[in-house]
Order: sequence, then structure tokens, then C-alpha cells
Amino acid sequence: MELLKQRILQDGQVRQGGILKVDSFLNHRMDIPLLRAIGQEFANRFAGEQVDTILTIEASGIGVAAITSLYFQEVPVVFAKKTQSKNLDGALYTAPVHSYTKGVDYTIQVAQQYLKKGDRVLILDDFLANGQALQGLLSIVEQAGAVAVGCGIVIEKGFQPGGAMLRERGVHLESLAILSSIADGQITFA
Amino acid sequence: MELLKQRILQDGQVRQGGILKVDSFLNHRMDIPLLRAIGQEFANRFAGEQVDTILTIEASGIGVAAITSLYFQEVPVVFAKKTQSKNLDGALYTAPVHSYTKGVDYTIQVAQQYLKKGDRVLILDDFLANGQALQGLLSIVEQAGAVAVGCGIVIEKGFQPGGAMLRERGVHLESLAILSSIADGQITFA
Repeated sequence: MELLKQRILQDGQVRQGGILKVDSFLNHRMDIPLLRAIGQEFANRFAGEQVDTILTIEASGIGVAAITSLYFQEVPVVFAKKTQSKNLDGALYTAPVHSYTKGVDYTIQVAQQYLKKGDRVLILDDFLANGQALQGLLSIVEQAGAVAVGCGIVIEKGFQPGGAMLRERGVHLESLAILSSIADGQITFA
Repeated sequence: MELLKQRILQDGQVRQGGILKVDSFLNHRMDIPLLRAIGQEFANRFAGEQVDTILTIEASGIGVAAITSLYFQEVPVVFAKKTQSKNLDGALYTAPVHSYTKGVDYTIQVAQQYLKKGDRVLILDDFLANGQALQGLLSIVEQAGAVAVGCGIVIEKGFQPGGAMLRERGVHLESLAILSSIADGQITFA
């Protein structure tokens, strides 16, 4: 997606440890016209697929998923929670996830009543690196007996193993920008 | 906002400890057509106000804010972060917040570069109870030398002190549904 790549080149900032900061438009301040273009592009990439629910994970996935829903007949967006809350009771699907960015392990949770057997689920997230979060979300879809139509990612770090692993599993994975390297502060795309 | 009140009566669930669960449409599964109606209503309530940036707080505020931006000329949405992240560096505005729902204290953070002196900021959140999160966000707007145009809340717990405290301070506070009581599992509006 050319518009996104240009924006990454213009405003992305490379930090030590393989971190690409895009918080000026994606995951701290959200550029809404860009998110609409991203949503439209996901609709193109998954054209013809019936989608009943969009599933994402808090926090950075929520904006992308909410705006993308506009291009999928405004289907409901469920976001997996990372923390315990008094607001989340009843039966839950859970999966363990390790975050390399934050250096912690956590359990993601989705209330069972919001994913039904046979539901066609599009999974969305802002970043794909090691694939831990997507694996957790795919596990939850499987536990529900729902069908993962595919995974839509805004930025994939192609130099980390998540994307290859998921494609080998046969997941329909669409990443709108795939980085081949951010070594030496230089951003290049696959 | 009648549509919202009807939805709360239909799908809201009262839990012990003054908790109203609305996760079927607002803060776990998001009903996107309802969020659009909420965004439109905020636009009506703050009609005539120039808004440069919408400020909210992760995680449940993000969906409301992203969709509401569509009705405010798609201005950028900044969401305050509750946790440390390797993605958040540089100079930060911070404020302490106590969450009664989760029973924890945390520090909310906004990168200084995303709130400029004189910016006209609309603060949005899903719930208002004790007003801790809004006070933190207002403090951050003040630290930035920006101007808080007002605060838009989806559901205010009118039986808790946050709303009265903020109105006494002169904050332009617009709550789309104000609960007067959820005692004995009975939901009533102010």
C-alpha cells in the first residue's frame, strides 16, 4: 500500500532493538484519513469474503479495527483484553501471549458469548513481528469453533519470523506494508 | 440520547459494586452503527466548537474517539497510554490516575509533541464515575498549554461524584446517558 509506505518513510522512526516508532499516525496519535485508507485497502484485500466479526487486541488494534469495520458493512468489532477487569466476567476464551515490545507475558481474553461457532472472523492488528498476538487470537477463534477468514496487518516486520510462520500454517495473511529491514536506521520494504 | 439509553436498558447488566457491564456494545464488543450515532451526537453537543485534536485514553475510549473523529473533520485522535512501552520515548506529559474498576493506580502518558500550545482539544471517554481519568486528561491538556474545549462521555454514573466535580470546575461536560441509580439491578436515568 503505497500511501502507507510513504508515510512510514516520512514519519517512522527507527529505535534500537528493532523498534519502528509510528506513533505519530498509528499507535499513539491516529491519523483518521489514513486509517480510512487502510480500512478500504483491507476491504480490497479480503474482497468477496463474508465477515461476521472483526477481532483485534487492545490497545493499538482498536482504532484500525473500528475504522475498518466501516468498509465491512459495519460488523461488530471485538477486542481481546490483556488485563483482568471487573467488567469482564462469565465464560472466557483465553490464550497466552508474550510481548517482545513490552517484555512481558500476558493472557488475552475474549468473552465466549461474542464469538459463536461458525462465525467468520477477520483478525486485524497494527503490527506483526513474532506473531505471538496473532497466534493467540487464532487460538481463540479456534476455541470458539469460529472460522478465521484471514489476518490483516498494517505493518509486518518481514525480518522477524511471525509472517512466514503464519503463511506456512496456511493463514490468509495480508500485510499492507512489509519491512525487509530497519537495520542502521534505514527503512526498506520487501 | 434515546438510542443509547434504550440500548443500555436492553443489554446493560448490573454487577455488584456499582458496575454496569456494557461490553456487548461498547467496551469489549463495539457496535459500530451505535458508535456512529454517538459520534454524531457528540458533534451536535459540541457544534460550533473548533476542535483540533481528540484526546482519549486506552483502551475503551479509542473506538469511540476514532469513530467520533469522522464527525469532527477527521481530526487526529491521541490516546493516552496507561503502561510503559518501548514505543513511547521522548518528552511526555504524565498524570496519576486511580482506577476504581480495576483497583490500581497508574500513570497516563501523552507524548508532548502531539499536544501543542493553543490546540483546541475535545476529551472523550466511555465512562465517567469518579472522574479520575478525566482529571488526568485535563491535567495533561493544561500542561501542554492547550485548551480543553470540553469532555464528551458516553455513560456517566450520576450517582458518583465525578460529573458534579467537573461541572463545578466549569468544564463543558456532555454525557450522552446519565445514570441516576443502578441499585438493586434496576437501571434508572437522571
